[in-house]
Amino acid sequence: MRLDHLGIAVKDLAAALAKWQPLLGSAPSAPELVPSNRVWVTFLEAGRTHFELLQPSDPDSPIAKFIAHRGEGLHHVAFHVASVDQALADLERRGERVVDRTSRPGARGRRVGFAHPAAFGGVLVEFVEGP
Amino acid sequence: MRLDHLGIAVKDLAAALAKWQPLLGSAPSAPELVPSNRVWVTFLEAGRTHFELLQPSDPDSPIAKFIAHRGEGLHHVAFHVASVDQALADLERRGERVVDRTSRPGARGRRVGFAHPAAFGGVLVEFVEGP
Repeated sequence: MRLDHLGIAVKDLAAALAKWQPLLGSAPSAPELVPSNRVWVTFLEAGRTHFELLQPSDPDSPIAKFIAHRGEGLHHVAFHVASVDQALADLERRGERVVDRTSRPGARGRRVGFAHPAAFGGVLVEFVEGP
Repeated sequence: MRLDHLGIAVKDLAAALAKWQPLLGSAPSAPELVPSNRVWVTFLEAGRTHFELLQPSDPDSPIAKFIAHRGEGLHHVAFHVASVDQALADLERRGERVVDRTSRPGARGRRVGFAHPAAFGGVLVEFVEGP
């Protein structure tokens, strides 16, 4: 199972890039609005994986609520899978909870789906398809 | 900059392994006590990176306090560097805060050192040397 990216909740993409870019040394992708999650995202390369910085696009979005409750910081971990629907179905078959029962559109034109944090001891896990 | 591992705070290694092992599909390393952090740790491979599960070895340890305040979940992200001392010095030179000013012994016989979460917008970053 390959790590696709690590999601980090931030209040402001520009301020977060000023922290991360000197460490990671990679150029960020152009900010992209992901309507299904109501976030602006930008990606930075970190070796074979990516860091996804997530800024809420509205104050009632899941990321805005996360920041209000827990502050900025690590938000989720995403794995590359051949089929998001299959990964979610496998979890449900094992009796674990999911946020999404089927895949939906995510950042970078990919299909994505989230497990429930309870499925992985408090860690929010995302599955991402191809390429 | 290469991701070395992702640290996850858990109450119980065995219970956490039961969640993560079916997903990652890799065998865990033998649990190791890291006295400097007062944690039991075990590592699972995830492609080119690792997941480090951290169980407190005493109730006043940093990981125990983290779990008491925030619950189980993502705890830190660790990067592979040639020199931990250099990575920490670079941060301080940029005016960022550090937890460790010099490296100290960590898991797997490696030298490690932690930045302060404020240095990366709420994300606790660890630096790990070699091999």
